[in-house]
Amino acid sequence: MSKIDKVVLAYSGGLDTSVIVRWLQDTYGCEVVTFTADIGQGEEVEPARAKAEALGVKEIYIDDLREEFVRDFVFPMFRANTIYEGEYLLGTSIARPLIAKRLIEIANETGADAISHGATGKGNDQVRFELGAYALKPGIQVIAPWREWDLNSREKLMEYCEQHKIPVDFSNKKKKSPYSMDANLLHISYEGGVLEEPWAEAEEDMWRWSVSPEAAPDKPTYITLQYEKGDPVAIDGERLSPATLLEKLNKLGGANGIGRLDIVENRYVGMKSRGCYETPGGTILMKAHRAIESITLDREVAHLKDELMPRYAKLIYNGYWWSPEREMLQAAIDQSQSVVNGEVRLKLYKGSVSAVGRRSEDSLFDEKIATFEDDAGAYNQKDAEGFIKLNALRLRIAAGKGRDLI
Amino acid sequence: MSKIDKVVLAYSGGLDTSVIVRWLQDTYGCEVVTFTADIGQGEEVEPARAKAEALGVKEIYIDDLREEFVRDFVFPMFRANTIYEGEYLLGTSIARPLIAKRLIEIANETGADAISHGATGKGNDQVRFELGAYALKPGIQVIAPWREWDLNSREKLMEYCEQHKIPVDFSNKKKKSPYSMDANLLHISYEGGVLEEPWAEAEEDMWRWSVSPEAAPDKPTYITLQYEKGDPVAIDGERLSPATLLEKLNKLGGANGIGRLDIVENRYVGMKSRGCYETPGGTILMKAHRAIESITLDREVAHLKDELMPRYAKLIYNGYWWSPEREMLQAAIDQSQSVVNGEVRLKLYKGSVSAVGRRSEDSLFDEKIATFEDDAGAYNQKDAEGFIKLNALRLRIAAGKGRDLI
Amino acid sequence: MSKIDKVVLAYSGGLDTSVIVRWLQDTYGCEVVTFTADIGQGEEVEPARAKAEALGVKEIYIDDLREEFVRDFVFPMFRANTIYEGEYLLGTSIARPLIAKRLIEIANETGADAISHGATGKGNDQVRFELGAYALKPGIQVIAPWREWDLNSREKLMEYCEQHKIPVDFSNKKKKSPYSMDANLLHISYEGGVLEEPWAEAEEDMWRWSVSPEAAPDKPTYITLQYEKGDPVAIDGERLSPATLLEKLNKLGGANGIGRLDIVENRYVGMKSRGCYETPGGTILMKAHRAIESITLDREVAHLKDELMPRYAKLIYNGYWWSPEREMLQAAIDQSQSVVNGEVRLKLYKGSVSAVGRRSEDSLFDEKIATFEDDAGAYNQKDAEGFIKLNALRLRIAAGKGRDLI
Amino acid sequence: MSKIDKVVLAYSGGLDTSVIVRWLQDTYGCEVVTFTADIGQGEEVEPARAKAEALGVKEIYIDDLREEFVRDFVFPMFRANTIYEGEYLLGTSIARPLIAKRLIEIANETGADAISHGATGKGNDQVRFELGAYALKPGIQVIAPWREWDLNSREKLMEYCEQHKIPVDFSNKKKKSPYSMDANLLHISYEGGVLEEPWAEAEEDMWRWSVSPEAAPDKPTYITLQYEKGDPVAIDGERLSPATLLEKLNKLGGANGIGRLDIVENRYVGMKSRGCYETPGGTILMKAHRAIESITLDREVAHLKDELMPRYAKLIYNGYWWSPEREMLQAAIDQSQSVVNGEVRLKLYKGSVSAVGRRSEDSLFDEKIATFEDDAGAYNQKDAEGFIKLNALRLRIAAGKGRDLI
Repeated sequence: MSKIDKVVLAYSGGLDTSVIVRWLQDTYGCEVVTFTADIGQGEEVEPARAKAEALGVKEIYIDDLREEFVRDFVFPMFRANTIYEGEYLLGTSIARPLIAKRLIEIANETGADAISHGATGKGNDQVRFELGAYALKPGIQVIAPWREWDLNSREKLMEYCEQHKIPVDFSNKKKKSPYSMDANLLHISYEGGVLEEPWAEAEEDMWRWSVSPEAAPDKPTYITLQYEKGDPVAIDGERLSPATLLEKLNKLGGANGIGRLDIVENRYVGMKSRGCYETPGGTILMKAHRAIESITLDREVAHLKDELMPRYAKLIYNGYWWSPEREMLQAAIDQSQSVVNGEVRLKLYKGSVSAVGRRSEDSLFDEKIATFEDDAGAYNQKDAEGFIKLNALRLRIAAGKGRDLI
Repeated sequence: MSKIDKVVLAYSGGLDTSVIVRWLQDTYGCEVVTFTADIGQGEEVEPARAKAEALGVKEIYIDDLREEFVRDFVFPMFRANTIYEGEYLLGTSIARPLIAKRLIEIANETGADAISHGATGKGNDQVRFELGAYALKPGIQVIAPWREWDLNSREKLMEYCEQHKIPVDFSNKKKKSPYSMDANLLHISYEGGVLEEPWAEAEEDMWRWSVSPEAAPDKPTYITLQYEKGDPVAIDGERLSPATLLEKLNKLGGANGIGRLDIVENRYVGMKSRGCYETPGGTILMKAHRAIESITLDREVAHLKDELMPRYAKLIYNGYWWSPEREMLQAAIDQSQSVVNGEVRLKLYKGSVSAVGRRSEDSLFDEKIATFEDDAGAYNQKDAEGFIKLNALRLRIAAGKGRDLI
Repeated sequence: MSKIDKVVLAYSGGLDTSVIVRWLQDTYGCEVVTFTADIGQGEEVEPARAKAEALGVKEIYIDDLREEFVRDFVFPMFRANTIYEGEYLLGTSIARPLIAKRLIEIANETGADAISHGATGKGNDQVRFELGAYALKPGIQVIAPWREWDLNSREKLMEYCEQHKIPVDFSNKKKKSPYSMDANLLHISYEGGVLEEPWAEAEEDMWRWSVSPEAAPDKPTYITLQYEKGDPVAIDGERLSPATLLEKLNKLGGANGIGRLDIVENRYVGMKSRGCYETPGGTILMKAHRAIESITLDREVAHLKDELMPRYAKLIYNGYWWSPEREMLQAAIDQSQSVVNGEVRLKLYKGSVSAVGRRSEDSLFDEKIATFEDDAGAYNQKDAEGFIKLNALRLRIAAGKGRDLI
Repeated sequence: MSKIDKVVLAYSGGLDTSVIVRWLQDTYGCEVVTFTADIGQGEEVEPARAKAEALGVKEIYIDDLREEFVRDFVFPMFRANTIYEGEYLLGTSIARPLIAKRLIEIANETGADAISHGATGKGNDQVRFELGAYALKPGIQVIAPWREWDLNSREKLMEYCEQHKIPVDFSNKKKKSPYSMDANLLHISYEGGVLEEPWAEAEEDMWRWSVSPEAAPDKPTYITLQYEKGDPVAIDGERLSPATLLEKLNKLGGANGIGRLDIVENRYVGMKSRGCYETPGGTILMKAHRAIESITLDREVAHLKDELMPRYAKLIYNGYWWSPEREMLQAAIDQSQSVVNGEVRLKLYKGSVSAVGRRSEDSLFDEKIATFEDDAGAYNQKDAEGFIKLNALRLRIAAGKGRDLI
């Protein structure tokens, strides 16, 4: 065990990370700096201050990172129509690099030599926190208590609290969810409990951010989303900051039963894992961004983006936001977005979101050419013959030489 | 104009292709063989016989290709979770290579030296028909009347009918849809008319295969789909042939408002085009196949499939089903599917389909390792440290040499 | 035939394009503007002026584009280590977009409504010229005489000259090469003649820019190439402009028998074609750029570049330099090059070029970690165990469930 | 430390692995089974028997794996034109999965519960051995002495020998190379020593398998290589087994100074490393395989292979030969090779190998179409106009809407 003087801990104010504060103090004899961020998880962060103080913490950071989160992480990611394994909108993954960055900034400000977090040794989050930390400050030390200690059950944690006189909020304890949850402005996730059986349907009362499609209104809601350079900037004509806009979409989506997802995904550390997610606003954004791109992006640019996307999604899922390869891909993605401006009209209804209209000053849709009616010579149908003949040439030569395709 | 003695025409029995029969006879002085296929478009094909006879056609082919269509084209495509431009399930694209193949087979049987079709010179279908034809019989000639004649309006077509005494079914004429439509067992598509304005919402009475989500039942429908080697083989325990299975899924999906899509897509011939699609069964299959793969496929195989998919989708969209590169990709895709066996439970509700359970004898989901509970040593959390440290090494070295990521 | 008033012709001053001048004047009754560029083909361009004047041309453009060619086309392409089909350094392909751009600029300056070129209807160059022209000026008309006229043999061309009193340089005619050649600062190419038989070895006297390896000096030549941001800027410490640097490398490479290539390639228009190329400087640059990247680029960035390269090469080969997808890829490639600085030492010897040393202020090579000697704790070998164990986890789970790999 | 009864060791008979035998016996109190393979490293393997016996080993395996190595590993890899990071022919990487497979087979035969190897904790080989082992037998234990012990210098190893009375061959010790070397039928590699300075040129007396280009004959050697289904089967008409063929190519290449390589590569464990390689036969095979593919493969298949190759190379380099994703890629690669038949004529001269001729019954090269002479109507040049026009359509529309590319 290397000598550690001061450690910055990603601190939620909950039971687990409170235990970690004391455990770090005891085990490493070091000072603990707590860092609590509001990234839209929907809980007050200010109460963490008193709890940290009660644990003897002297340097306490409490930051509202909601705008930075959406502007610098969520929106850039959505420019790529990013989906992991065809389904997952990366709600947890995309928050981690921001936390990692802030942990390192605070370590630099406070002269800490280590960071710590409350992620387990089986999950992706430890990887995302630590890869980010190492990439931004290579000499930093990382303490991952869940990989070190033996407090690997709720009972042992409670016992530790009692022994070390850590005040536990028992009311909170009672209503403890059976699920492991994580929330931020983009989504809330559920793992564990009955979900560990992939055949079992998630129970209705698990979901927290959205009504069920069944309980959603019987009439559709229509909204218009305005885009500038690939990012949404206004809802129904009202300009909103990134975080405010996403918050509003979450409400609209949640009220219409939109954004629930139940999947089995492949973790970077090697196992499959069942997760349920609610991403109401993100689900709307995904549909809307594709729709505005559909009229403004060149075909080959769109296809190139589609081919690069799975790899970009994998980078983010695996924790490589802070990497040169992500920045290289981002350069390509961002380069494509200057023309992605305009409006998308969307229908939200009982769990579905559909794009029903799209328009743009930068539209490449050319009604004169696309029309089934007379196009007044805008397109010469005879060109198609040569186009087909030369595209077929290699196939004709091969067939002529006796190559069989059937 | 090269000398043509006999031409095989893809004949629907409708006005346009009936005009083509006569136009081919007159323009090329050649014999016309008609070929009419039931690929699940939902209309009787037998009436085409009498119409063809009335036009003097002597060799008339009427085939039921529904099983072959689903078994050899739709299912192989769905093994790759194929989606074009993030949205389109390729309902039209995947039917064309089957028609092309059958046209060539009939040309071989009847000794015809040409094929003909009723696709316009602006669309993708001409490309798909003709690339397929050239790839399968390189010396074949292709006559595409819409690229040659000047009958480019409904009025001129009707006039031609009158001059050439082609009997027109006027009752049919009256209820003529304002949309250009195409249907087969996988989907029905709509283009043209008011859809040529991408901002205009499609009208409710356009849709033919599905009720609106609003009109769908207030209670969800649950079904269980069984897979073998990547293909669905049974619904709720009842084994069904490919076409029967897809037909049943279409009914189930349509009744629950599932599978409507409204997009602007990029055609191979270079323009953007607005299309609306109903793909009820296909939308269910897409969700189900991903779900069964999620527990049976290795992670890296799944990711490789995701990276190859856009290119495979583009091949099919562009008309290269009959090509060596499609066969090469298919070999990889099919190789991955031997383990894709098991069951998926799905919830259909008012326009949405969700996977709510999945199980398999070939599942790679390992509850012992994935659990949040004590795993009895199945996974050593300490391994994660080395995993992260070495994955971070290149980033740490770069940061240590002063490379900035922010 | 649409009405054309003025056409800008890519004019070499040779027989073919001289005939084209007259043919354009006669066939279209239009004014011809000639454009002759020095892109390092190794022939005087000034004589083209008198020839054009003799043909009655009033607007004559003669430009030295060598620096622009190397700086804005060749060097950006080499940043991606671009090779088509594993072999071809794209010497012809990369010159065409510059010519297309200049043709359009001149069309804009002179008010011309068309451009014309002397490329045949079977090759890639027509595609490259015309795609570039259409992309830069969509309303431009293109006249490709070789696709229109019937002067498809040398005899007919000579006859045309005689009829139209075009002065022919007979001395030039006599030493007419049996090959179709194209040259610029990056390479010289040979096609046709005996090369049309892919089994026949190219004759020694065909090659013009390099001595044979056999005839090269018996002692190696060593040079040091200095890079800044991915581009070479100096040879043996002497800073040189892009064109001067490439010219010098051509001399050094040619004198050492470097850069000959004999391949069968796949043309965009669909056929296979045999080509021989001499690219002395480019062959050296390819080796050197990889070497400087090998110590300065991050691993994953390097691998991403390698995976994108074939598609980037294909874009350029097919004529899509002036396209949004090329610009998107270029943004990613260029983003990666800011750290590609330093020096490469190369050995040139009888047809081979080897990198024998590389060094850089931006090197990521870390001798402390890489060493086989004691590394004083820079690298913890125990980390490797966890790294391997978790990377193996999915494989172990699969094997444990009975999946066979053999 | 888990209880181990019997361990199979990859045993070379040299100093290091002899120490490992004793160390395993002492440290784990277990029985050691030695496995020594002839994979063409050019040293006698039989002497390993006496050495193992002297160390008290009872179960001794000595196998000639040369044919299996070339047939089932080297040739399948070359079907993909596999190169890592643009330069490295993967000579070491491709031998490891065979060793891993054989270790596991022997563990199964002898009832061993562990395997062991002499690879260090910094390199790729440990990863390749262990990933293979885990993939083939998930419950196997792995002992990697170099990651466990503290014998991390030559002096400590010698001391250990003395203490444990391990007979050391001192004559061997004296001529100890300053390089870390590895050899098999595909290549010999050098690392360490002066190579740890990437600016230093490798010394001439380091190279063992090839003469220097300077010392090679002054006259070129011509050979003809015959291919069947993507694999070479004969040299100059003489059919040879895989190992015999590669051995002969090594001699031919080595005698002509072919196949030397000096690079800095990126290891999977995260650092950069300088390596020198001699791959005489492999370098010839790479050139020859591309040449035979150039006339027999369809263009799009060839391009797809080129785009998949870097990822396939990375898989092999990183140690994932025994993985489902490698098998999926192999299925695609192998599917493409049935037509790769024919002959390639090659010129070997002072360090260079050039393809000078290629012919095949399966050639797609069509002299009638490719010719610069009159093609008698095989190709209609007018088709090119439509081909270009439609390929340009999206670019023309974009330019017409004011999109700028410059």
